[in-house]
Amino acid sequence: MTKKSNTKSPWGGRFKESTDDWMIRFSASIFFDRRLYAYDIAGSIAHCKTLVKAKIIKPGESKKIISGLQQILKEFEQGKFKVKESLEDIHMNIEQRLIQIAGPVGGKLHTARSRNDQVALDIRLYLRDEVDAVQKGIRQLVKVLIQLARQHVETIIPGYTHMQRAQPILLAHHLLAYVEMLARDRSRFEDAKKRINVMPLGSAALAGTNFPIDRKHTAKLLGFQEITHNSLDAVSDRDFAVEFCSASALLMMHLSRFCEDIVLWSTSEFGFLELSDQFTTGSSIMPQKKNPDAAELVRGKTGRVYGNLMSLLAMLKSLPLAYNKDLQEDKEPLFDTVETVKGSLAVFHGMLKTARFKKIPLKRLAEEGFLTATDLADYLVMQNVPFREAHEITGKTVAHCIATHRHLDQLPLAELQKISPRFKKDVYDFISIPKSVQRKNVYGGTAKKRVQEQILRLSKIWK
Amino acid sequence: MTKKSNTKSPWGGRFKESTDDWMIRFSASIFFDRRLYAYDIAGSIAHCKTLVKAKIIKPGESKKIISGLQQILKEFEQGKFKVKESLEDIHMNIEQRLIQIAGPVGGKLHTARSRNDQVALDIRLYLRDEVDAVQKGIRQLVKVLIQLARQHVETIIPGYTHMQRAQPILLAHHLLAYVEMLARDRSRFEDAKKRINVMPLGSAALAGTNFPIDRKHTAKLLGFQEITHNSLDAVSDRDFAVEFCSASALLMMHLSRFCEDIVLWSTSEFGFLELSDQFTTGSSIMPQKKNPDAAELVRGKTGRVYGNLMSLLAMLKSLPLAYNKDLQEDKEPLFDTVETVKGSLAVFHGMLKTARFKKIPLKRLAEEGFLTATDLADYLVMQNVPFREAHEITGKTVAHCIATHRHLDQLPLAELQKISPRFKKDVYDFISIPKSVQRKNVYGGTAKKRVQEQILRLSKIWK
Amino acid sequence: MTKKSNTKSPWGGRFKESTDDWMIRFSASIFFDRRLYAYDIAGSIAHCKTLVKAKIIKPGESKKIISGLQQILKEFEQGKFKVKESLEDIHMNIEQRLIQIAGPVGGKLHTARSRNDQVALDIRLYLRDEVDAVQKGIRQLVKVLIQLARQHVETIIPGYTHMQRAQPILLAHHLLAYVEMLARDRSRFEDAKKRINVMPLGSAALAGTNFPIDRKHTAKLLGFQEITHNSLDAVSDRDFAVEFCSASALLMMHLSRFCEDIVLWSTSEFGFLELSDQFTTGSSIMPQKKNPDAAELVRGKTGRVYGNLMSLLAMLKSLPLAYNKDLQEDKEPLFDTVETVKGSLAVFHGMLKTARFKKIPLKRLAEEGFLTATDLADYLVMQNVPFREAHEITGKTVAHCIATHRHLDQLPLAELQKISPRFKKDVYDFISIPKSVQRKNVYGGTAKKRVQEQILRLSKIWK
Amino acid sequence: MTKKSNTKSPWGGRFKESTDDWMIRFSASIFFDRRLYAYDIAGSIAHCKTLVKAKIIKPGESKKIISGLQQILKEFEQGKFKVKESLEDIHMNIEQRLIQIAGPVGGKLHTARSRNDQVALDIRLYLRDEVDAVQKGIRQLVKVLIQLARQHVETIIPGYTHMQRAQPILLAHHLLAYVEMLARDRSRFEDAKKRINVMPLGSAALAGTNFPIDRKHTAKLLGFQEITHNSLDAVSDRDFAVEFCSASALLMMHLSRFCEDIVLWSTSEFGFLELSDQFTTGSSIMPQKKNPDAAELVRGKTGRVYGNLMSLLAMLKSLPLAYNKDLQEDKEPLFDTVETVKGSLAVFHGMLKTARFKKIPLKRLAEEGFLTATDLADYLVMQNVPFREAHEITGKTVAHCIATHRHLDQLPLAELQKISPRFKKDVYDFISIPKSVQRKNVYGGTAKKRVQEQILRLSKIWK
Repeated sequence: MTKKSNTKSPWGGRFKESTDDWMIRFSASIFFDRRLYAYDIAGSIAHCKTLVKAKIIKPGESKKIISGLQQILKEFEQGKFKVKESLEDIHMNIEQRLIQIAGPVGGKLHTARSRNDQVALDIRLYLRDEVDAVQKGIRQLVKVLIQLARQHVETIIPGYTHMQRAQPILLAHHLLAYVEMLARDRSRFEDAKKRINVMPLGSAALAGTNFPIDRKHTAKLLGFQEITHNSLDAVSDRDFAVEFCSASALLMMHLSRFCEDIVLWSTSEFGFLELSDQFTTGSSIMPQKKNPDAAELVRGKTGRVYGNLMSLLAMLKSLPLAYNKDLQEDKEPLFDTVETVKGSLAVFHGMLKTARFKKIPLKRLAEEGFLTATDLADYLVMQNVPFREAHEITGKTVAHCIATHRHLDQLPLAELQKISPRFKKDVYDFISIPKSVQRKNVYGGTAKKRVQEQILRLSKIWK
Repeated sequence: MTKKSNTKSPWGGRFKESTDDWMIRFSASIFFDRRLYAYDIAGSIAHCKTLVKAKIIKPGESKKIISGLQQILKEFEQGKFKVKESLEDIHMNIEQRLIQIAGPVGGKLHTARSRNDQVALDIRLYLRDEVDAVQKGIRQLVKVLIQLARQHVETIIPGYTHMQRAQPILLAHHLLAYVEMLARDRSRFEDAKKRINVMPLGSAALAGTNFPIDRKHTAKLLGFQEITHNSLDAVSDRDFAVEFCSASALLMMHLSRFCEDIVLWSTSEFGFLELSDQFTTGSSIMPQKKNPDAAELVRGKTGRVYGNLMSLLAMLKSLPLAYNKDLQEDKEPLFDTVETVKGSLAVFHGMLKTARFKKIPLKRLAEEGFLTATDLADYLVMQNVPFREAHEITGKTVAHCIATHRHLDQLPLAELQKISPRFKKDVYDFISIPKSVQRKNVYGGTAKKRVQEQILRLSKIWK
Repeated sequence: MTKKSNTKSPWGGRFKESTDDWMIRFSASIFFDRRLYAYDIAGSIAHCKTLVKAKIIKPGESKKIISGLQQILKEFEQGKFKVKESLEDIHMNIEQRLIQIAGPVGGKLHTARSRNDQVALDIRLYLRDEVDAVQKGIRQLVKVLIQLARQHVETIIPGYTHMQRAQPILLAHHLLAYVEMLARDRSRFEDAKKRINVMPLGSAALAGTNFPIDRKHTAKLLGFQEITHNSLDAVSDRDFAVEFCSASALLMMHLSRFCEDIVLWSTSEFGFLELSDQFTTGSSIMPQKKNPDAAELVRGKTGRVYGNLMSLLAMLKSLPLAYNKDLQEDKEPLFDTVETVKGSLAVFHGMLKTARFKKIPLKRLAEEGFLTATDLADYLVMQNVPFREAHEITGKTVAHCIATHRHLDQLPLAELQKISPRFKKDVYDFISIPKSVQRKNVYGGTAKKRVQEQILRLSKIWK
Repeated sequence: MTKKSNTKSPWGGRFKESTDDWMIRFSASIFFDRRLYAYDIAGSIAHCKTLVKAKIIKPGESKKIISGLQQILKEFEQGKFKVKESLEDIHMNIEQRLIQIAGPVGGKLHTARSRNDQVALDIRLYLRDEVDAVQKGIRQLVKVLIQLARQHVETIIPGYTHMQRAQPILLAHHLLAYVEMLARDRSRFEDAKKRINVMPLGSAALAGTNFPIDRKHTAKLLGFQEITHNSLDAVSDRDFAVEFCSASALLMMHLSRFCEDIVLWSTSEFGFLELSDQFTTGSSIMPQKKNPDAAELVRGKTGRVYGNLMSLLAMLKSLPLAYNKDLQEDKEPLFDTVETVKGSLAVFHGMLKTARFKKIPLKRLAEEGFLTATDLADYLVMQNVPFREAHEITGKTVAHCIATHRHLDQLPLAELQKISPRFKKDVYDFISIPKSVQRKNVYGGTAKKRVQEQILRLSKIWK
């Protein structure tokens, strides 16, 4: 712990001892913030132009700086840039290299800014792009779902509550429930983007810069709609990272629910679904296995995104204004969330696209779970039996079926009428599974007509 | 664990044994969902009218039902309603009482709905109101902040980064940083409200109702802008609760940061602030103490809101569609979050309104922390010294001050020029603390003019 | 917010204004800490005796105080004690009442202690008892599991990995897996208790008391093994609450896994289990439903305990020493965790005790999922085929079965030998489901003999 | 998403399509589990010996396998091992390489085990070592603290509650409070180790192996005290990872509190502490800054460890038995926690070792905060004034001081006696700051004698 690094740190002036090597490693962010290089360079180019506009640097100097930055960008893209741990972060690495390339004039670039507003800018630029990438992933997934829904507007599956068979529904209806969730996710990411897409540069360390720069100009060059209104807030605000992770946590929660359905449907007990070999794996010891790994992994990774959210919230709690070093811990959870969400959406897309939904024979649907018992109750209600009484009668009918090992539609009318004289011949029409589905003909219901109405609406929205 | 309850449960029909008493207590939600009574009744009245419109019940029946419901509302408001634990939840309590009052016709009210869509409606109605209450609390707090800012556009305090004195700023600027945060909070709650304000009734248990009701009519009666598009999603969606808690977690995080500032400023070491007796407490053992309890409590309660968010996210993870009983665990964390947030905002409002900010003598500001060292560096940059070199020279100047126990403005020009010949007489103008503040004259900066610009802008927005 | 309370607060001396009423409500803990009354009184009685020993109060005074405290205890137990919100917490409520009963001498009881060490004592006393209650709940549950295991040492069910049928196992073996988890839970609560069971009184506000009391004497009177070693730590330590919640989070996680099994097994698709009417509920709309509510609720409440843990951890983060008011937020999450865990264990116990496990016909076991494919591979390995090759051959055999819609044991030897000449007649012995179970005859394996060995071991441990 | 990988996967047999490339990347764990290589190899060597003992493989075969494994170990250590992503994880990478080196006999090593028990073994071996590493880090930190305490048994600092000055304490006492916390951490890691140090191999996929191996022999070879008792539990248990993370969360919470103290003490307002240049950093824009980065980073990383804990708990919730792919998500949070904890302890150690605590002049201690007001109250109590009354009188005395801008010891006796006739000359002895410290002479109190008693006790424990 006593070896010393010889690299000059950016704050060398008043320090007599150099930083402990171990400490450098512990506090360096270059290992993870290097991914921001393109955003850092883009931000610097815009800043440079604003400095020219403010006559702080000359056009000739600006030319040198910008061409130096462009060269650095190329070096990164070609994998030739050598990052130095001792330079702590991506900003210092680029600046030092710029000075190597462009000479002392490179040192002028940091005029009128601080790393505090610079890093805030970089993450916002990065996250703005990544929100778009996530939106693209959501859209792709939704499109597969709508396509699958189109194919399955006549496929009947059991609908469940409490994991007990409840009522028959269309598979298309079930799939579109996830589209609703994803639509809310999209809307949340859109809302988050409004608050991400704000330009902080010019806030300097915390108080605003001494130099008369035109912050709106920088914003315009970088495509921002708005600029921050308070310099203290601008350098210490990480709401955007938390909000992105919150929206991601909800998205992953939705996917985890879908995963659960997929894992269940892939069991030999349910047997509603066969995933493709491409998105399943086998066992190293049990040769017959075909494991829904993709779904399990996405479900597991949900915990990870929750953890990232909690990590950010806990980190930010009780930090006094303005910048504190704790804020450096914003990046890894954010980056990990971005990668996890994009990966999960992509894998989900592939998994569903290649999956095969099996038709469940009507006979099997009728055999298990009394799926149309509610319809029987509603039949009675339509005969003017108060709902609670109808419910009671139906309960007895089901109990009678269980006791005599029959389905609802196997009870002869006479037996039904012994339970309640209200039962007429047309009752069988009510307890038919396909007719039960048809009868859920309310807006948002599972009747084919209603599902098709949604497919139409959604196809327009998600084109 | 073997005693049995004799109260008839709503699903009695096919059950032979009655529910275990312990189990009833464990699963009953009436202890906490009773607060939804007014929303449950309002929803029922609207539903009743929609049933009339659909000719499912007759106007005369409707009249009896509605007047019964109004009577129940009165009973609640007068504290006369006796809730029964054995009836499990608020919905069954009200329904059973309705049947007592209105007779068997009361049993018709549950036609075309299920508790699954009913509870979804109730929470949305409740939360819609509570979002408005939270917004009101935010607005009140912001108004106090703007008012305080107006009073302190000339009060200079040290601005901190890493809790080290960094640059002088206006107290007004610091306070307005929190207004920015609260503005984002407001905007997030507004966004959340769009997704809360959607009408689920008619989704029934999961598949949609068998009865041809006009869902948009119910929505209109209850003031909803939109209705849900998918019945499965409608009964299993709790995004709105999570999103409310996410927005609350961010709000509490902001307050916790403010609390930290307040606690620090109230120490005898900082001494920037004196809280009123009304919002502090003393010690049972140390008579001299004046403890910033309100700030500490809000800070502590931040953890609670984080916990509620995590609780909801964990609960929802991997739940297959559609309704599962786990969802009942949505209410307590949500209710607790609502109460905590409203209480924290109210206490904060009172604490700030009665607080007294002390003026810090310029002498003290100059003595500690070299607040204008950055200005010194910027002075050099304006003499065309590249930023990095200017930074280096300033560092040496500060080190020299520390070694000789003086402040920046106590170094004679000759000594300054020994460090760098660039220093001219006008440098003292740059290291004056009030002038340093004035010079942060960029949009969003701490110059008085800029802060007043913000006060004006914010006064318009938050009127 | 401007009304003032007239009740005298314990720190009245230097305060000119009385506390804001709203603030009193916000900061009062009496609503939840009243449950500590018996511990507060027990602690006070012991403290009183120690004060006598130190000659700080006289035996006669002590007699009055103790009899006053005993009267207060009775008042609480008979529901006659009137708590006052304005007195903020349980400690002040009891003290004030004591002074009413015993006169000014009651005011001497607070000598040599502070609310800071007093509350630390109370929670430790409370939690020590509650750990025992939780242990009792664990033991009861384990006993039911062992009993069920005894009944099912011959019941074969499919074992799953990735929710895919993997290998046949004994139901007893599956149930005992949960006993292992609960054994670790027990061991964690035991460990936690060591750190709970430490006596803090005498630490006073933070520095230790000025009075020469014998802290070990108080400890002895209250049955503590150890006393705290550092007064600052003693008043600011809440590790015990966090540790209890951590252990509880793991316990609930285990129960949530069990719940998932129970919910799955109760589906009509799996059909391995029928829960009793006592621990299930029906549907308000679907008369045929029998919902595993108890299991769903425990699963849902797992999120709640996670949330409580996170709440405590977030609250404690970055609190400087020593006591801060934030610590008051320790109680509600802790109390809620205690109640949730005890309730969940009790409901689980009842649910399992009244559940009926159904035997799965061997025919059904053979039909789905190729449960003995691994045995087939191991058969080949025993014929000296390297494992990886054996795995490959078995994979092909399974594929062949799927293609020709047969089970493993329906392939004639000739066909098997076409796939690999290594197959001999004795292979059928290997792919028999009951024999496969028998062959897992390694310590900890699912062979009946091995499971009985565990039942014996566990019966001794958990008597 | 349609490109296919050509590498043969370990379950190739029944699969017709190869795994999607994207899916391979998503599900591969080799990027992070490669760090387990040494443990995987050690486990394999022991397993190989156990297979020989069971006569499943021949001594000659074993020799080849073991020498192959040793060669692979060397390749890893020399950075020559080429991991293949397509082989998914560290286990398959090593196995495939073994077969390359040793020939088909390498394929026999996987006999009687599965990746499910293999990975459980590897993590347990890894974590057992890492617990020891963490314990070492704790011990080093404690030793520095004890050493610092020895140096500061006469340094008086203000003790705080609610961040308000409360009573004078010794710096040594404050530092030793953290030793108490670290002692509990040590004890928790010790307890966790008991449950980590259990041998799972032989559990195979879930049911136990078909082969008659001696599991205790493997345990003995690998230095385990115990073997797992239930195969299902053994492959699905990740309690040890959660428990390690829980213990780590508490440890980090303690460090975060210490960080807060350090950050505060390093402010120019408090000014109790000067950190070395080695463990601080400067500002890129403010040359005078000396930022306590190390403390801020550790504080920030606390959130990260909380997040990892939450991530694991959420991942494990509701997983049915036995192994599910979600469990693969156990590793990254665990590895990250291990690294974060070790790094934080090391940096803390260095930061404290090089820090300089400044003496606070008695004059300054007396000036701010009425540190001995409690002693004044206790003085009165010793004059037989009931505590509550004494508290009241002291409060008035403090109020009088504030009103007249004096400290306690500046009030002449006459003035004191006007407030209460109980005050005698010897009261000044009570309100002397050093004597106040001396008087906290109770076990665990801040009196020098008591602090030295603890230093002695702790020196013995932590040698």
